Amino acid sequence: MKCFVTGAAGFIGSNLVDRLLQDGHTVVGVDNFSTGLAEFLNAARQNKLFTLFEGNLLDRDFLNGAMHDCDIVFHLAANADVRFGADHPEKDLQQNTIATSHVLMAMQKNRIQKIIFASTGSIYGDAEIIPTPENSPFPIQTSFYGASKLAAESLIQAYCEGFGFQTWIFRFVSILGERYTHGHVFDFYKQLLAHPDQLNVLGDGKQKKSYLYVQDCINAILFSLNFSKEKINIFNLGTDEYCEVNNSIQWISDYLKITPKVVYSGGKKGWIGDNPFIFLDCKKIHDLGWNPKLSIKEGVIQTLQFLERNKWLLNEK
Amino acid sequence: MKCFVTGAAGFIGSNLVDRLLQDGHTVVGVDNFSTGLAEFLNAARQNKLFTLFEGNLLDRDFLNGAMHDCDIVFHLAANADVRFGADHPEKDLQQNTIATSHVLMAMQKNRIQKIIFASTGSIYGDAEIIPTPENSPFPIQTSFYGASKLAAESLIQAYCEGFGFQTWIFRFVSILGERYTHGHVFDFYKQLLAHPDQLNVLGDGKQKKSYLYVQDCINAILFSLNFSKEKINIFNLGTDEYCEVNNSIQWISDYLKITPKVVYSGGKKGWIGDNPFIFLDCKKIHDLGWNPKLSIKEGVIQTLQFLERNKWLLNEK
Repeated sequence: MKCFVTGAAGFIGSNLVDRLLQDGHTVVGVDNFSTGLAEFLNAARQNKLFTLFEGNLLDRDFLNGAMHDCDIVFHLAANADVRFGADHPEKDLQQNTIATSHVLMAMQKNRIQKIIFASTGSIYGDAEIIPTPENSPFPIQTSFYGASKLAAESLIQAYCEGFGFQTWIFRFVSILGERYTHGHVFDFYKQLLAHPDQLNVLGDGKQKKSYLYVQDCINAILFSLNFSKEKINIFNLGTDEYCEVNNSIQWISDYLKITPKVVYSGGKKGWIGDNPFIFLDCKKIHDLGWNPKLSIKEGVIQTLQFLERNKWLLNEK
Repeated sequence: MKCFVTGAAGFIGSNLVDRLLQDGHTVVGVDNFSTGLAEFLNAARQNKLFTLFEGNLLDRDFLNGAMHDCDIVFHLAANADVRFGADHPEKDLQQNTIATSHVLMAMQKNRIQKIIFASTGSIYGDAEIIPTPENSPFPIQTSFYGASKLAAESLIQAYCEGFGFQTWIFRFVSILGERYTHGHVFDFYKQLLAHPDQLNVLGDGKQKKSYLYVQDCINAILFSLNFSKEKINIFNLGTDEYCEVNNSIQWISDYLKITPKVVYSGGKKGWIGDNPFIFLDCKKIHDLGWNPKLSIKEGVIQTLQFLERNKWLLNEK
């Protein structure tokens, strides 16, 4: 199978590229390196089955050409930082919604009909039902990130109905693990390395979040692709647990053997559009036969170990 | 109140402009006349409280300037024909989603925070629950039109959360009445005028649809604006009944006193992305105190009477 991976140099993208190559697939990766890192593709670049194109998904000719002859698209490229949406609402629209439209048009031109899409649990907004199932009541969007991802999901669904496409849409919780480059573990570790005596935390520390280890995430994607064959396959992806930000602070402090003073910015939400409680009901994919191997705490520890081995990352961008 | 109305020369827009002027409001209308008709604003143009700007919502400078000093935005401009989405998927994205993003950005620049948005019952796709309530299970999109309107709704909701906007979002069934210029009554009337002996119908004629008379629609919008004061107010708008396309054919034939041979294109759906059963649960707005005055049949008859008085419309675009 010749796989087209957008966001190939990103956190999840580069791990997926490595796995696909390991499984013997041919991989064409694209990335504009706005947040992706060339270093994450060091291993892939040694593999003859891998081709990398540097370019922007908003450039149609580039995209049409790069996608030539591929069988399936893994669309992971995105403006992935949910926190700064209100600083530039148009960025999410451009990079998440309009870019997805371009990917779909390029697929049509190249007669590719299968698309895997990295969506987000943020599209459930302040969910009425927790844990939140895929068919929860029609949600209200609370973030520009969630809004732009829901728009992309919707567009993909219309292509399935209109043009016979088939899709696997995954609504992720936050992902942790090797090549993790943004989010609370990253921020906390970076802060504590600079000043182990104090940790500044957004919100009140009681936000409840769920996390999934990146290799579990990739296992789930490839598993669903093999075993779920509907026209439109939508799955929540997470662990069957959540933690408070304060739990995570404790795990990180214990791991680093420090006891920082924790200073909260206050308020229930860490930022505009933050969901103070994200916890997804993953029964649908469990019923298919997939389960995560790592707990949230184990995922946090894996992430810390990775960051310790890769301190250069703390000073990137 | 100084009202900004997009799609001011359109079917619903021009009726809304007339009503707002009648109620003593100042109205700034914009339209690019891609489907709007100058004739629909003949009355409004006689009113000193009305200003019309011809231009495109994708032109930021135009939009920012036109919106100056307004208090509230009625955003009705759209690529409104659900049927041809698959012919040009990008048109819906541009004119419905991206245009809405531009409207929201212009509102922010002009410090306007209230937006009324014309959404659609099409966003429920092939609804699981019929009649479909506002909080029905998270739907799958089946049309490019629905996808683009859901994307716009989502973006508006993110502005409410992120920037303190307030919104009234209306999910319409098909609207009928004066200045109706596309849809099945228009098509059937036009066909039957040309050849009263035969009527060509998309699908099998058994598609079940709900309709609402345009003056009822405008009453509902203004009523909700007065009596629903949440941050995000979402209402289905329709009648508590539906009809089959075949019922409508009978009403139209009776009205015209003809008995055409009906030829069906076949299939359950009239076009790609067509929803063979649209019927919205309007309990939420009924509970607020609004009810429609006309039945679907009465709306169809009003529409026929309007088309009879305005046969010139049949030859427009």
